Amino acid sequence: MRIGMLGTGIVGQTIGSRLVQLGHEVMMGSRAEANPTAITWARKEGRHASFGTFANAAAFGEIVFNCTLGSASLEALQQAGAHNLANKILIDTANPLDYSTPIWTLTVCNTDSLGEQIQRTFPDARVVKTLNTMNCNVMVDPGKLSQRTDVFVSGDDIEAKATVISILRDWFGWQSVIDLGDISTSRGVEMFVVLWQDLRTWSSSHRFNIRVVS
Amino acid sequence: MRIGMLGTGIVGQTIGSRLVQLGHEVMMGSRAEANPTAITWARKEGRHASFGTFANAAAFGEIVFNCTLGSASLEALQQAGAHNLANKILIDTANPLDYSTPIWTLTVCNTDSLGEQIQRTFPDARVVKTLNTMNCNVMVDPGKLSQRTDVFVSGDDIEAKATVISILRDWFGWQSVIDLGDISTSRGVEMFVVLWQDLRTWSSSHRFNIRVVS
Repeated sequence: MRIGMLGTGIVGQTIGSRLVQLGHEVMMGSRAEANPTAITWARKEGRHASFGTFANAAAFGEIVFNCTLGSASLEALQQAGAHNLANKILIDTANPLDYSTPIWTLTVCNTDSLGEQIQRTFPDARVVKTLNTMNCNVMVDPGKLSQRTDVFVSGDDIEAKATVISILRDWFGWQSVIDLGDISTSRGVEMFVVLWQDLRTWSSSHRFNIRVVS
Repeated sequence: MRIGMLGTGIVGQTIGSRLVQLGHEVMMGSRAEANPTAITWARKEGRHASFGTFANAAAFGEIVFNCTLGSASLEALQQAGAHNLANKILIDTANPLDYSTPIWTLTVCNTDSLGEQIQRTFPDARVVKTLNTMNCNVMVDPGKLSQRTDVFVSGDDIEAKATVISILRDWFGWQSVIDLGDISTSRGVEMFVVLWQDLRTWSSSHRFNIRVVS
């Protein structure tokens, strides 16, 4: 499958590399056409990997991942272009974190969320929020943890969510996917990230996740 | 031990009853001196249970639990009186939820938290935020779940936290208590409650909790 990967950070690289390993064609998009990080990544990953602008990557992908910084996601998606996102599944992994404060805060929360903002701004995209509640190494390899843990999906488009649940299971190995409901449930998973940061400090590691136990 | 229980709701009743079962003396405090719920509860629980105003209960307790509605906690604690809380461990279990909106929101979050507000307003109280991330039946009986799960503590007073960790372990049966850090980490656990609500809808039950898996 052709995947558009928006964002050249560690999340985009990690998911992108996993998708290339699985045999998919991945174009990594960034603000500049020739982003050095994207070029290096594409060279390393070989013939199934390429790079371009946000618009190039969004146009290329049958499915598009948003792995940009949450605080810059709306602008990046504007550059990607609504027409390049229309009718496509847009997997939003971003957290709207403001890193400028001593204790990181969210740029949107409580009465709104980045997931909702993206869906409102791009009503023809089929937005599914997922994977934002763990480190990227866990995202693509949940089996490395000592127990089964959970990943969440939020979105208004039932079919898009079903496809994303299959992707999470079949491509990344998630055995347990919790469908929280419509895109407004992005609020909870984005606000969870504040606790996630405290848990990272507590555990001195990025390699953990939560499991819901009943 | 003498415990002041602020709040007559299901959380105050459940924790209060557990403490009475354990042999402690519990006074349930409320706005009115003769709150019908508190009277009924105290009659049911017998000679170790009593009731009074917030100020009566806070004065009575060697340790004080805040189990009021989060949106009303500061006012309740003002009625309890700073002098009645001074130098005492104040276990804050409340969540600052606004139930008036279709999707519940928090009255404070992101750049502040109820836990921090309480500690700032009552600097002589030894505030420990805990138990706000699960239903009250799980709070006092975590062993009912199918696996060990986690409870969090946040607070500036190291000795107070150590005492609360012992209380959680010895009185309620929590085998795993995660010390998140100072009182500012109340933000994360309070903001988690939005995801908790979505999980409650998903699971159609209050009886669950999370476990951190590495």
